[in-house]
Amino acid sequence: MLKAPDHQVAGHRADNGKLGPLIDDSGRFYKPLQNDERGTKEVAFYSSFSSNGRIPTHIRRFFPIFHGTQHLEASDGSGLHPHLVLQDLVSNRLNPSVMDIKIGSRTWYPQASEDYIQKCLKKDRESTSLPLGFRISGLRTYESDKSGYWKPDKKNVQGFSLEDVRSALRKFVSSNPSTHTEPDCLFAPIIYGGSDGILAQLLELKAWFEDQTIYQFYSCSILMVYENGVAGEEGRRQTGAEVKLIDFAHVVEGEGVIDHNFLGGLCSLIKFVSEILACPDESTTKGGLQEPEKNQFSVENSSKA
Amino acid sequence: MLKAPDHQVAGHRADNGKLGPLIDDSGRFYKPLQNDERGTKEVAFYSSFSSNGRIPTHIRRFFPIFHGTQHLEASDGSGLHPHLVLQDLVSNRLNPSVMDIKIGSRTWYPQASEDYIQKCLKKDRESTSLPLGFRISGLRTYESDKSGYWKPDKKNVQGFSLEDVRSALRKFVSSNPSTHTEPDCLFAPIIYGGSDGILAQLLELKAWFEDQTIYQFYSCSILMVYENGVAGEEGRRQTGAEVKLIDFAHVVEGEGVIDHNFLGGLCSLIKFVSEILACPDESTTKGGLQEPEKNQFSVENSSKA
Repeated sequence: MLKAPDHQVAGHRADNGKLGPLIDDSGRFYKPLQNDERGTKEVAFYSSFSSNGRIPTHIRRFFPIFHGTQHLEASDGSGLHPHLVLQDLVSNRLNPSVMDIKIGSRTWYPQASEDYIQKCLKKDRESTSLPLGFRISGLRTYESDKSGYWKPDKKNVQGFSLEDVRSALRKFVSSNPSTHTEPDCLFAPIIYGGSDGILAQLLELKAWFEDQTIYQFYSCSILMVYENGVAGEEGRRQTGAEVKLIDFAHVVEGEGVIDHNFLGGLCSLIKFVSEILACPDESTTKGGLQEPEKNQFSVENSSKA
Repeated sequence: MLKAPDHQVAGHRADNGKLGPLIDDSGRFYKPLQNDERGTKEVAFYSSFSSNGRIPTHIRRFFPIFHGTQHLEASDGSGLHPHLVLQDLVSNRLNPSVMDIKIGSRTWYPQASEDYIQKCLKKDRESTSLPLGFRISGLRTYESDKSGYWKPDKKNVQGFSLEDVRSALRKFVSSNPSTHTEPDCLFAPIIYGGSDGILAQLLELKAWFEDQTIYQFYSCSILMVYENGVAGEEGRRQTGAEVKLIDFAHVVEGEGVIDHNFLGGLCSLIKFVSEILACPDESTTKGGLQEPEKNQFSVENSSKA
C-alpha cells in the first residue's frame, strides 16, 4: 500500500492529485523522476555513487540507500511513471523532527542554461543562500503530544532572514518552538552535541568535502532528523539524530576540484550550530550583534561599490 | 626617494605616467587611494583591523602592517594625492617569486550596485573563479641569474583554464618554469611544505576563517612570496615562504556569519597545493583525470538544466 509521506517538509507533494513521492510500509520512498533531465541526472548520480569504490564507507551512511528505479502508478493518477526507489529516511521514527537545508550560496553551475542560471541566481539573492551559504527549505519540529508539530508555512520559510534562520535552528531543538517565549534549546546538547550528534556528523561530512573531487553537489540539501524524546522522561530513549544528503538532480562531475560552494555553506551551517551549542541560553536576537567590539568597522555595508 | 615597485604582479602600475603604487627604501609601500569609495573603504578596513582586539596575534602576520595615510606627489604627476602607507611585502627580498591569487568564487557582495555585481559576475564566470573558487591575478617566478624571471603576460594569465592554474602552481615552485618540459617542482617540499611553509600558513588562515565572523573579504587576494634559493646551494639560505592577504577595498562587515565564500576558495587552493606536495613528480596534465574509476559518473556536464 503506497501513500503520501507524512513527514515531508520541502519539495513536491503527492497531495490533491499532484505528482509527488510515495512511501510503503516496508521503509521505501518512491520519488517520481522529473520528466526533464533532472530525473535522468538523479538516477545517474545514485547509480554512480552506489557503485563508486572511492566513497569511504563512513560517508555512505549520509546518503539514502538506493534500490534502483521502478514503474509505479503515479500519485496524480496519470498512469505508470518511473520512480527512484530510495530508503525512507523517517520510516523508523514515531514523531520525527525534520529540517531541510539547501546548501551552497550558489545553486547553479556553469554548464547550466542561461535561463536556469538567472532563475537560480534570483532565488539565491532573494533568500539567505547568498549571505549565509545555505537556506532553510522547510522544517517541522515535534513539540508535544498535546500541541503536535510546529511547522512554519512555506511562504514564511521562503522569507527567512538571517535572524529567522538563527532562530529556527534554535527552535528546532527546543521544547517550546510554537510559543512566543525564547526558544529554550533544551535538546541542543543531545541533538546538536554529543559524540554522534548533528555537529559531529556535519564535521565528518566537512572532512570529506575538503578532500573529495568526484562530485559537485549543486542545489543539494542536508536533512537533519531526530526523534523528539524529552531527555530523562523515558530513560535512555534513542533520539537518533541523523544528517542525510538528499536531492541530487543537479550533481555534476568534480573534475578534480573540491566542491568549495557546498563546503563553504556547510562550514557556515556548522558555525551556526556550534554557536547554539556554545550558548544555548543566549537570546536569538543577540547573535553576533552584541559582541564587545562591534561597530569598530565603520564602513557602511549599504554603500554602493 | 620614491619609485615604482619592481615586483608587482597585479593591479594598477605606476608606469608611463599612470597612477600606481610607490615604494621607498625604508620598506614602505604607498598605495594611492582610489577616488571612488574603494579608497575610503580600504582605509576604513585597515583602521578597523589594526585596532581590533579580536584579531588573534598569530593572524596579524598575514596582513601588511598599516602606517596610516599620507599625501604624496602622485606617480601620474597630478599633484598631491592621498596614499595608504603599508609595509612593502618584498622589500627584504633579493629575487622574490610572487603569485597573486584572488580568492572566492564570487567577487561581489549583496550590497553592491547592480552594475558592479554584473561586471564582477561576468569576470567570475569567464575566469576560474566560478569553477575553482579562486583565480590567479598575476605571478612571476625567479628562474636563475641567467634567465631571470618567468612571468606570463597579463592577457595570458586572465585566460587561465583549470589546467593552466594547476600548471602555474607547479611552475611557481619549479627550477624550470620557462621551459617546455614538465615543471620539476624542485622547491615544492621547502616552499609549499614544511612546518611553516605555504600550506601550513594557508591551514592556519583556514582555521581562522572557519571561526571569524567580523569581516567578509570580497575580492581580496592571497599573495604567496618566497625567495628562490636552490636548496643546498648556499647552505641553509632562508627561503622565507610567506602568505599575505592584500586588497581590502571590498571588505564588508561579517554580521555574525563566516566568510563562506573566501573559505570555500581557500580550501580549494589548499587542495591544489596539497596535491602538488603529494605528487610533485606527476605530470601537470594528469590532475584528477586519470584516477582509477573516472568516468563512472556518466551524466554529461554539458547538458542543460
